[in-house]
This record gives sequence, structure tokens and C-alpha cells, in this order.
Amino acid sequence: MAIYHSISLHNFTLPIKTNLTRPSSSSPRRFPAAALARTEPYWAAIEADVDTYLKKSITIRPPEAVFEPMHHLAFAAPRTTASALCVAACELVGGDRGQAMAAAAAIHLIHAAAHAHEHLPLTDGSGPGPKPQVRHRFGPNIELLTGDGLVPFGFELLARPIGPDGPARPDHPDRILRVMVEISRAGGSEGIVDGLHKQAEILDECSRFEFIEYVFRKKYGVMHACGAASGAILGGAAEEEIEKLRNFGLYAGTMRGLMEKKNSGEIENMIRKLKDLALNELEGFHGKNVELISSLVAEPSLCAA
Amino acid sequence: MAIYHSISLHNFTLPIKTNLTRPSSSSPRRFPAAALARTEPYWAAIEADVDTYLKKSITIRPPEAVFEPMHHLAFAAPRTTASALCVAACELVGGDRGQAMAAAAAIHLIHAAAHAHEHLPLTDGSGPGPKPQVRHRFGPNIELLTGDGLVPFGFELLARPIGPDGPARPDHPDRILRVMVEISRAGGSEGIVDGLHKQAEILDECSRFEFIEYVFRKKYGVMHACGAASGAILGGAAEEEIEKLRNFGLYAGTMRGLMEKKNSGEIENMIRKLKDLALNELEGFHGKNVELISSLVAEPSLCAA
Repeated sequence: MAIYHSISLHNFTLPIKTNLTRPSSSSPRRFPAAALARTEPYWAAIEADVDTYLKKSITIRPPEAVFEPMHHLAFAAPRTTASALCVAACELVGGDRGQAMAAAAAIHLIHAAAHAHEHLPLTDGSGPGPKPQVRHRFGPNIELLTGDGLVPFGFELLARPIGPDGPARPDHPDRILRVMVEISRAGGSEGIVDGLHKQAEILDECSRFEFIEYVFRKKYGVMHACGAASGAILGGAAEEEIEKLRNFGLYAGTMRGLMEKKNSGEIENMIRKLKDLALNELEGFHGKNVELISSLVAEPSLCAA
Repeated sequence: MAIYHSISLHNFTLPIKTNLTRPSSSSPRRFPAAALARTEPYWAAIEADVDTYLKKSITIRPPEAVFEPMHHLAFAAPRTTASALCVAACELVGGDRGQAMAAAAAIHLIHAAAHAHEHLPLTDGSGPGPKPQVRHRFGPNIELLTGDGLVPFGFELLARPIGPDGPARPDHPDRILRVMVEISRAGGSEGIVDGLHKQAEILDECSRFEFIEYVFRKKYGVMHACGAASGAILGGAAEEEIEKLRNFGLYAGTMRGLMEKKNSGEIENMIRKLKDLALNELEGFHGKNVELISSLVAEPSLCAA
């Protein structure tokens, strides 16, 4: 039986703005090699910090039968730049990295849970699509249950008063609650779950471009939008900044997802358009972090979607 | 392949206090028929209110492919008294019903998600255990995904500022965050997920009494403890009251779960002990609501676990 190995879509709406204004020549669109060399360590450092935070949080403790596979599946899943973007957006608006760490970790855990359920050992690779390279240490029962354990644990990281490095939310519980709404929607009915639903729904239309775009937007774009908006909320951004960063995340995440499927001129065109749209949203932001965050689309090979 | 149709356990610890004091004769242990007639409508009214709240919250809206099965699975799952107990505990400590409604709904959704994953149409009923009576309207892909959508939606109900009847959290965001930690643990690694893990782990020991007790405590007891503690937190209870109600919920939920397996003298003895322990925790509470809440163990046939 195949789970998820097809792509389909109803009620498709392109997310592209129709009245796009061309960005000015002072936009962060130009990205020389020297700038890339400066940005790479930034993303690597964020990823290492999120990993450290997760390792301290998901220690293997009783009940070991639960926490051992939870620890394994949390780190077996590929990293998502949606987590890193959460931290980068927080820093872009002047927040501290620590303010975004629990949210970045929660985003990774929800992404890891979806990855585990998309690749359950019972069903993984039996469909018509390409065979994924996923190594399974546990049986289907345990991987199903562990996915179910990761999602509430992600919310717990955000909600708890004490994190692995001390007080987790010294202030602003309203911001935390707002970010929880963002993450629950992006990880659920308005994002990943919708994307996987469409992907599972119809087996015959996996080559249709607009279906591919919809699925990648829902699976990757919405979670990146959530990551960017959440980081901005936690960093104390103004509403306008939050919305610009949300749009940046939507375009950047969809684009980075589509990079996996770069197999037609239509998709390559879409990737170019999304890159322009994404960079356009960064106009109005200033400082060295603009260059850092824009490298997510200027050089998408930096890390996986 | 069988998912969940066996019961097993390692590291078993009985939750029973060793220095139990016998309750005084003024305890709410005596439960005449007239009192039962008074309490039944109370639980029915709570259940109807939670249902109404859920129906207003999970409307079928775009994407319909997501919300239609979500609506279906949320109401196809049997109701849990853990939700009703959340409301009753809030009222017992002097809170308003509305303060506990989102938490009660979230508890039901997490219970419904676990129920959906425990009874996926792929695997349901193929194990050695009794065949469950679950009607499936959707295929395994959709029921797996829908379960994944229900959990974050439960957290969203708690986190969002506006509920179906207006402002959802007029104040006390700290109480909401605390309840989220309660619910994430009970629905995850410290409760349902641990219980199902143990149940899935070993196929050969399903008749061993202590395994049965552990699994029912984790599957039902911990979520009832969470419901009672959450209701008390939201109703503004003192810490001591919260802990007493948490214990009441643990004993009451485990006992109500074990009622399903009332097939040995050992289990019947345990049920009697748990009932005494539960009622003992209510000493110190006063007013008509003590009678109402104690009916959960005094007359467990009132509603399902």
C-alpha cells in the first residue's frame, strides 16, 4: 500500500502576487561569492544551536521505551531551514537567539513527526514514486507512536516555564501563545497535513505543475512562513515586519522545496519568480542580518529545505 | 500486522499510596440513588457543552479534504470523561465553565487522535485481541493524517485569542501555558503514548495484572489526572487543591479504564481500592459540586472512560 506517493490538488490558488513591483537596484538580490562565504557559517551555527537545544531537551530518560525512539526520530529526520529561519528572523528584528530557540526546536519536532509518518516502515517505498532513502531502526508501531509523541513534546518545549538552559519564557506569554497558533496551523490543517493530504489524494496527476507547486507550498512554504513570522513575533517585531517576513518565508520555503523537483522549465521559472518575490519582501529591513537571511534564497544549496 | 493489540510492561510501579488513611464517615463515599439521579444530568450537560464547543470550532471549511475527516474523526471517537472532569474540576474550585471549555475540547481531540491511530483501518482488528467495533469512513492515509491534524488543532483551541463564543482567554495566559504542558505530557510521553507503547511492546503477557493496570493508568488515568488538574488550574485553585484533584483524576481514570476489563477478582479488588483512593482525595472540598464530581467513581456507569 502506498502512503503519500502521489500528488494531487483541488482548489488550487497560486500564491504569487499579480501586481508585483520590481525591486530597486539596492535590493539584496546581488549576492557575490564573498557574501556567501560570510553567510554559510551563520546558518551552520544556528543549526548547531538548535541541535544542542534539542539534545538537551530530548534526553533519554524513563520511560526509555518512549524517549529512545523519540530521540532517534527527532535526529534522524532531515533538518528543515524553517527552524533556522525562525532564529534568523528573530535576530533580524533585533531579538536574541535564545528567544526563538524553543520555537525553532518545536518546528523541527513537528517536521520530524510528519517525516516519520510519511515514511512509516510499513508503507514507505511501496508506492509508485521514487524510493526514499530512510533507515528504520524501529517497527511501524513504534514509529507511528513516536511521531504522535513528538508533536505534543514540541508544544511542551514552548509552553514550559523552564528550558534546558534556565527560564524558558521570562516574559511575553502572549507572544508564546501567538506562536503556538502559528505552529499548530502550519504543522496541521493549513500546512503540512493539507500538503500531505493533497499528495495522497490522487495518484494520477503527480506531473501536473500546479499540483506540485501546491503540495510544496503546503509542505514547505507554510512552515517556513510560520518559522519567519514566529521568530519575528518572539523578537518583538512590528506587525508589518511580521507579515513581510511571513511572506518571505512562504516564498523561500516553497522555492527550496521545489529545488528538489527541478526537472522542468516551468518549475525553474517558478523558482526564479519565488526568489524575486522573497527578496522583495526584505526591502525595508536594514543591517548585516539582511544579507544573512537573504542567502536562504540567494544560495539555496546552503542547507536542505 | 497487529498494532496495539497486546499488553506489556517494564519498570512497573504501582501508583497506590502505601500509607492510605481510611476516610472519615463524613466522606462523599455514600452515594444514595437520589444523589445519582441529581448528578447524571450534570455530566450530560457538560458533555453537550463540550460537543457544542467542538462543533462550532471544527466547522467544515476549506481545505474540506482536511476538515471533513477531522470533523468526522473528532466525533466518531468515544467521549472521554477526562474532558468532562476538566470542566467539573474547574467548577468545583469556583471557576466558570467557560474557562475550562477550550482545555476540555483539546483533551477530547488528543484522545480522538490517539483513538484514530490505535484503530487505523489498515491494522485494526488484525491482532490477537478482541475485535474493536470501529466504523471507518476514510482510508488509512486519511485517518493517519487526520489524527496528525487533530493534535495541533487541540493546542490551537487553547492558544488562540478568540474562541467560537468570543474572546477565548480574557486573562491568565500563564495558566493556559501551564495547562498546555499538562496536556502535552498526558497526551504524549508520560501518558497515552507511553501506555500504547507498552501495549504494543510485548504480545505474550496481556493477561498479567500489573501490565493491565500500567497500561490503563497511562491510557486513561494520566489523562484524567491532567483533565482534573487543568480544570483546577484554569479555575484558579490553590496548589494543594490542584494536586488533590490530579490524584483524584489519576485514580478515577485508571479505575474507569479497568471497568472495561472487569474479568478477575484481582481487577475488581483494584477497582474498589482506586475508588476509595479517589474519594479520599475529595476530602477537604465542600459544596454541592463535591457530590457531583464524586459520582464519577461512585457510579462509573454514568459515562464511558
